[in-house]
Amino acid sequence: MRIANLNGRAVILRGDRAVDVERASEGRFNADPQSLFADWAAFETWARTTDATGEPFDEAQLGAPVPAPRQVFAIGINYTAHAEEAGYPPESVPVTFTKFPSSIVGPNHVVELPEGNVDWEVELVVAIGAEAHRVSRDDAWNHIAGVTIGQDLSERLVQMQGTSPQFSLGKSFPGFGPTGPWLVTSDDLADRDDLAIGCALSGQQMQGSRTSLMIYDVPELIARLSAVCPLLPGDLIFTGTPGGVGNRMSPQRFIRADDVLVSEIEGIGTLTTQFTSR
Amino acid sequence: MRIANLNGRAVILRGDRAVDVERASEGRFNADPQSLFADWAAFETWARTTDATGEPFDEAQLGAPVPAPRQVFAIGINYTAHAEEAGYPPESVPVTFTKFPSSIVGPNHVVELPEGNVDWEVELVVAIGAEAHRVSRDDAWNHIAGVTIGQDLSERLVQMQGTSPQFSLGKSFPGFGPTGPWLVTSDDLADRDDLAIGCALSGQQMQGSRTSLMIYDVPELIARLSAVCPLLPGDLIFTGTPGGVGNRMSPQRFIRADDVLVSEIEGIGTLTTQFTSR
Repeated sequence: MRIANLNGRAVILRGDRAVDVERASEGRFNADPQSLFADWAAFETWARTTDATGEPFDEAQLGAPVPAPRQVFAIGINYTAHAEEAGYPPESVPVTFTKFPSSIVGPNHVVELPEGNVDWEVELVVAIGAEAHRVSRDDAWNHIAGVTIGQDLSERLVQMQGTSPQFSLGKSFPGFGPTGPWLVTSDDLADRDDLAIGCALSGQQMQGSRTSLMIYDVPELIARLSAVCPLLPGDLIFTGTPGGVGNRMSPQRFIRADDVLVSEIEGIGTLTTQFTSR
Repeated sequence: MRIANLNGRAVILRGDRAVDVERASEGRFNADPQSLFADWAAFETWARTTDATGEPFDEAQLGAPVPAPRQVFAIGINYTAHAEEAGYPPESVPVTFTKFPSSIVGPNHVVELPEGNVDWEVELVVAIGAEAHRVSRDDAWNHIAGVTIGQDLSERLVQMQGTSPQFSLGKSFPGFGPTGPWLVTSDDLADRDDLAIGCALSGQQMQGSRTSLMIYDVPELIARLSAVCPLLPGDLIFTGTPGGVGNRMSPQRFIRADDVLVSEIEGIGTLTTQFTSR
């Protein structure tokens, strides 16, 4: 099942049609896409049984599927190929930072490029559907509403300006968290723990890997994060990027205002991001 | 002026009396303490002119003055004495991380100690009153609703377990962000940029400094953070801790379940935190 944010309203996507959640549920569920996570299990049960057929829709009207998360967890150094290119030792432990929630946008947001070196990082993004606190690996997927595609856009000069790396700040310029185009429930995926993932910049393939190559897979991330911190319904987890970022290319390559970034994850679709100069 | 959260309701404190905001404003302002920040300027104007006298109140009923921030910015390495004790070079640049919002609690929350080494870090905490994006130093205080006392409680084993420091996760166990006991507007402070700050653990003074010794002072933090990321009304900034943490004492000293932690900032008051074992 695919759930999306169509012009600020929660919809279920069926083929090329969108079912408006508030109208089809006769007000049982609110139009606000973020509100669905407050009672995701009830929403999902209803959504799987409604016989509403919906209306054609315009993909250009899609917004962030999870527009206002309370907490955004982001994982650094979670694929060995990226650890290697970033100069981390092979036995690296993934690190947790945040993309401040004001950076989260949808698939049709044009990202304004700040000065500096803006880089791409395609990531599988997980949305929490039921509060997770001290959850086991085996139970982890039961707390997940669905997954989407994300870009952990990163301005490398701010990121590297501290004595320790400044992950959170340099990755939180406005628009630096494109997500979408929709949320996909894990039963729609052939193998939710092994998805092809990659991105292309203006037609050139930059990243290409599989989510099965994560150092900490999705259940392990849920277990480890929730051992510390309650993961709240509607929170997001950016699960880390594979190798192939522009900062580590020779010569380096950063995003320009005329670039188009196409991110793709198997079973979810593609997320296209455009840019403009400040 | 002091603003507080009394049993979940926004109040103005006048001496030993509390004015209920919703009742005294006849519903113009909502009881939810977090909602005041959505229109802080109007609230502050009204609050300074209302002649309501309020009722006696019980300090044991005070909660977090800013209970549900959208974003919590936290600054590491912002006093030279702490940079030195933590092993950072003297020219260190402060770093930005988050305390995940689920860690924020009030003055009367009893903090459950996880396994590991839990340390204290008293900090001046700033609450944003008007959205700040690309704000200058000179304009910075105009975007601040008020200040309070915070503890950036830190479990050092999780913090240090990554290849780079894991600031965000090890500082975000439930209850690890005690704040309060109330918000103070900056006009109530003798010198808002130079306040005595310290804390005592079970009667022993552990930290003692002045906020004028910050490497990046409050206006500089607002300017630098807002150059990247919009600071939203009701966001918090933990501004960094002075020297004197337990991790760097010899022998090391960490918080035990029978400890009482009293944090103090000149012109604000004291924040008392109690603990329990898991």
